[in-house]
Amino acid sequence: MLEKYSVRTDLALEEKERFESDNVEISGVVLEEEYDKEREIRITRVKVETENGAKTMGKPVGVYLTMEAPNMAVPDEDYHREVSVKLSGYIQELIEGRSLDTDDLSVLVVGLGNRQVTPDALGPYVADNLCVTRHIVKEYGKYAMGMEHARLVSAIVPGVMGQTGMETLEIVKGVVEETKPDLVIAIDALAARNTRRLNRTIQIADTGIHPGSGVGNHRNGLTKESVGVPVIGIGVPTVVDAATIANDTMENLIDALESSDILKGVGDVLRTYNSAEKYELVKELISPHLNGMFVTPKDEDELVKQISYTISEALNMLFTNKEEG
Amino acid sequence: MLEKYSVRTDLALEEKERFESDNVEISGVVLEEEYDKEREIRITRVKVETENGAKTMGKPVGVYLTMEAPNMAVPDEDYHREVSVKLSGYIQELIEGRSLDTDDLSVLVVGLGNRQVTPDALGPYVADNLCVTRHIVKEYGKYAMGMEHARLVSAIVPGVMGQTGMETLEIVKGVVEETKPDLVIAIDALAARNTRRLNRTIQIADTGIHPGSGVGNHRNGLTKESVGVPVIGIGVPTVVDAATIANDTMENLIDALESSDILKGVGDVLRTYNSAEKYELVKELISPHLNGMFVTPKDEDELVKQISYTISEALNMLFTNKEEG
Amino acid sequence: MLEKYSVRTDLALEEKERFESDNVEISGVVLEEEYDKEREIRITRVKVETENGAKTMGKPVGVYLTMEAPNMAVPDEDYHREVSVKLSGYIQELIEGRSLDTDDLSVLVVGLGNRQVTPDALGPYVADNLCVTRHIVKEYGKYAMGMEHARLVSAIVPGVMGQTGMETLEIVKGVVEETKPDLVIAIDALAARNTRRLNRTIQIADTGIHPGSGVGNHRNGLTKESVGVPVIGIGVPTVVDAATIANDTMENLIDALESSDILKGVGDVLRTYNSAEKYELVKELISPHLNGMFVTPKDEDELVKQISYTISEALNMLFTNKEEG
Amino acid sequence: MLEKYSVRTDLALEEKERFESDNVEISGVVLEEEYDKEREIRITRVKVETENGAKTMGKPVGVYLTMEAPNMAVPDEDYHREVSVKLSGYIQELIEGRSLDTDDLSVLVVGLGNRQVTPDALGPYVADNLCVTRHIVKEYGKYAMGMEHARLVSAIVPGVMGQTGMETLEIVKGVVEETKPDLVIAIDALAARNTRRLNRTIQIADTGIHPGSGVGNHRNGLTKESVGVPVIGIGVPTVVDAATIANDTMENLIDALESSDILKGVGDVLRTYNSAEKYELVKELISPHLNGMFVTPKDEDELVKQISYTISEALNMLFTNKEEG
Repeated sequence: MLEKYSVRTDLALEEKERFESDNVEISGVVLEEEYDKEREIRITRVKVETENGAKTMGKPVGVYLTMEAPNMAVPDEDYHREVSVKLSGYIQELIEGRSLDTDDLSVLVVGLGNRQVTPDALGPYVADNLCVTRHIVKEYGKYAMGMEHARLVSAIVPGVMGQTGMETLEIVKGVVEETKPDLVIAIDALAARNTRRLNRTIQIADTGIHPGSGVGNHRNGLTKESVGVPVIGIGVPTVVDAATIANDTMENLIDALESSDILKGVGDVLRTYNSAEKYELVKELISPHLNGMFVTPKDEDELVKQISYTISEALNMLFTNKEEG
Repeated sequence: MLEKYSVRTDLALEEKERFESDNVEISGVVLEEEYDKEREIRITRVKVETENGAKTMGKPVGVYLTMEAPNMAVPDEDYHREVSVKLSGYIQELIEGRSLDTDDLSVLVVGLGNRQVTPDALGPYVADNLCVTRHIVKEYGKYAMGMEHARLVSAIVPGVMGQTGMETLEIVKGVVEETKPDLVIAIDALAARNTRRLNRTIQIADTGIHPGSGVGNHRNGLTKESVGVPVIGIGVPTVVDAATIANDTMENLIDALESSDILKGVGDVLRTYNSAEKYELVKELISPHLNGMFVTPKDEDELVKQISYTISEALNMLFTNKEEG
Repeated sequence: MLEKYSVRTDLALEEKERFESDNVEISGVVLEEEYDKEREIRITRVKVETENGAKTMGKPVGVYLTMEAPNMAVPDEDYHREVSVKLSGYIQELIEGRSLDTDDLSVLVVGLGNRQVTPDALGPYVADNLCVTRHIVKEYGKYAMGMEHARLVSAIVPGVMGQTGMETLEIVKGVVEETKPDLVIAIDALAARNTRRLNRTIQIADTGIHPGSGVGNHRNGLTKESVGVPVIGIGVPTVVDAATIANDTMENLIDALESSDILKGVGDVLRTYNSAEKYELVKELISPHLNGMFVTPKDEDELVKQISYTISEALNMLFTNKEEG
Repeated sequence: MLEKYSVRTDLALEEKERFESDNVEISGVVLEEEYDKEREIRITRVKVETENGAKTMGKPVGVYLTMEAPNMAVPDEDYHREVSVKLSGYIQELIEGRSLDTDDLSVLVVGLGNRQVTPDALGPYVADNLCVTRHIVKEYGKYAMGMEHARLVSAIVPGVMGQTGMETLEIVKGVVEETKPDLVIAIDALAARNTRRLNRTIQIADTGIHPGSGVGNHRNGLTKESVGVPVIGIGVPTVVDAATIANDTMENLIDALESSDILKGVGDVLRTYNSAEKYELVKELISPHLNGMFVTPKDEDELVKQISYTISEALNMLFTNKEEG
């Protein structure tokens, strides 16, 4: 409704929904959905196919896969293993879509974010549980790993600019130039619009990581163009901006007023006002004190550990055929 | 305005404000204010003097001191030391108000909350930095501490019910009966209504800790009645319930509609509806997905460490005349 | 050889070995051994049956079970699960030996030690992963847990005296009196004599925890006599005192000198001196700078997490028939 | 005495002592000592001036400054501040010795080691408390920092090879090439020979970090040659190899035997054997189970935090004229 008021989301899925709620078809953007009924996992593929579609969506041309699984927030090891298996397949799909051979690959995993800020620690946690192999294969050959194929996995936790004084891009670029992986996989905590998606949604994109993404704000994206090799971004929404809650609440209220049984007359009046006027109203009312405020579940510490483990296991399955203990 | 819709706050100050905004004088409740201009510290004393006042406020009879210092969120060691000095004085005031002699006191500090949930870790962090002396004085006498007076400080971090399977009260009561302190000081992270107060407000109350207080929910209070010795509660708001943000936003919007230049007619309609009708509307619109969601600043990990240190230093100054390294 | 020089060990097994190496039969002490060849787990039961045996061993009358499994230091989840199953059986054996009914039991698990000192964090880590049920059963009845029998599990991490100013015994006694469990299970990190045993040996004793046990030094034991209910102690050696290394090395050297091919004459001389003279020599040479120094493996942080998980799973299997995620 | 048995030390000071104890003058190596009586700080400058000296010492040509201050293990904030001031001066001395201008410098601080292994976490901890400025100066100019001179401080915690699959050198080299600092300062936890030096000795060397240095083993050094810009290494011994304790104890015993009153005859025999024979004896007796074992103080967690803070403050004083809160 208030399409001019841009609420922050890093999920392509939510970007797409924003338009759907207005019944708008976006040219150059294709949406596909699957549903695994047994496991209650919904997969959405948003394919941004043209520059036009990219412009409308505010996301570059590429494939955005989203897995939504409400039970990801439940500490059930067996279920998480199944999610890891599925996730591992989708990552492979995107890698092969980039004409890379998963069987003979050198990959650098980048754990973005700040280990010391709970909802931003996803990337570092994934790196912590990753089974790195590059140094072993380099030293002893691929047979040392009991692998037929030589997949070299390395990992780095670059830290955030306030800790390093450097752009994440500078660090990643330097390491890529020195160690020459075929592919970068970057893991990041995201901001969503909807609290229902927190810690139970995984987005995989073959377009990398973009400015403004993530819980911390990256000023420069990690993309094939900036880094020099293809970049797959894996993200999990762990926070909603507090301003989003305020915005959504107001939208709900205005919707309700427009169709209210209780306050019917209000709706009649509101309907006479246009989007721009409503937007002005909302903007004015969102408290400036909500700046820098996050909405996050009480047990975020536990949830972010759990989902980071599910992701690192997916990567371990894909690249080393084994899970970390 | 929507006085029937009870938004959660653990601050007596905010409870009082709720009424003021409706221009209601509360009988049995006295409010005093001081302002330290140089240090920008505002002190508010809410004295609930009668059972009637207690009923209206939803807080037991007693003294509630609040220190608000916007700069507490800034990592300035010297400033925090000054806050510690002031805080230490106010704690002493409440102790002496309970006819206890600070110079000859055995005190048990209870660090409430969950060490593994960032905004709930305040209590455990305060206990971590506390200078405990009880075991030394017991073993070597008070002169071992270089103290003229025998102040015995002990501390416990009882954990939360989901970790222990026990009520916090059961643990504290058991320890009090076994070690017989004169006084319990319980530290807890609180929920506030207003994000501006987060991590920059300290409440000290001579009435202890009450059910529903804190980031975690205590089912039983820690009070003189339940514990057996006087209990002073020290709390810092570290979160706002996400539902509060939604509620506030709606109240703002309704206020705005009632007086709006843009949408004047809406206000005219709204004014014809009563509180109960408005309350129904708000209740209906607050998303159930906000349950269990917190609003907290991005750098909460840092902020809670900082303010917990300020509190532990105040206690160290008061009881051991020395600061922990 | 140097039986007068008392090297510190908390393992009954090592205490027993000390005598065996001198070919001494201890009256009142019975030793039984089993070996699970497939899983490479050695079980030793030291039964101290008389006060005389207790005096010689320096350990109270009771049963001391030791599981030694070299592979416990390997991060193999399946293997650790098998160890948990076995361990759970041995704990049950000791509980039933105390005439308690595992099916209808209220148990308080005490995680001894200091969370902030890596090799001393075993107890707190076990408590962290424990599935506590007491509060649920109390609130909703035993059927809420899907259990036929009402086993109430509670847990506490009392901290160490330097943090609390209180004896661990005071805290545990207070909590026991308030919550009235049938049994206390206390988990503690131990000191061993032999680095080979570190993080791969679990001792279970039905006599509780004794003064001088553990990485930190408890001044008062946790026993049926002091606590009021039976206490089962579970311990894992995580350190060797540095002085022990020095002592062992010297013993090795003296042994070697006595039988040396290279330095044969030295042995001839040494053999003319008695135990007391040799002991004086060793005592003099152990550097005072080794006081308070520990020998511990480089990857102790990882190892202590791993074995603590194995123990908490054993307890979860035994008391809640389910494993924590 | 047993000069063939090479006990591991990363301290040039201890390397030098090894020879002194044999009353050997090393050509090409100059030793200077200062003593600050009031603060009980001993400064030793070992200057390795020739390739010959380097060969004998097993350390490259360069200056090695060592500060020994027994009280560094005491948590006295004021004392640590004085140590920081002194340390900051010595770092400046080495920087200027490399013809760099401290007033106009771009420096990359590298926190070597493993954050998850307590005695190896020194480097990461120093980086955590560092005041980085590069991104601010780059964005807003040097006046944004209130600095007359433009000192750009950046920092990285590269992790260890088992975590990253990459040589530390590869990561540092990549980052240096991308961000072009004038100087690298690398912080590392060291192994010493003598437990008395643990956590109370700081070594600064203008030759960087060398293979085999540190608690973890670096396979490639960080030096001007390998990194491309001058490298200053700052190290603190936090562990002694357990084998060193065993070795020292045996040396003590053999010394004692050679001069013993009690066992005089033994000495007479031992004196007839040569170094090589004694070395064989020692080597044989050191238990293989000591491999990978460290000797470290019980309160290492606390001590390493404390000294890392002292080092980060020295760097903050030197480069930003301010201390971190």
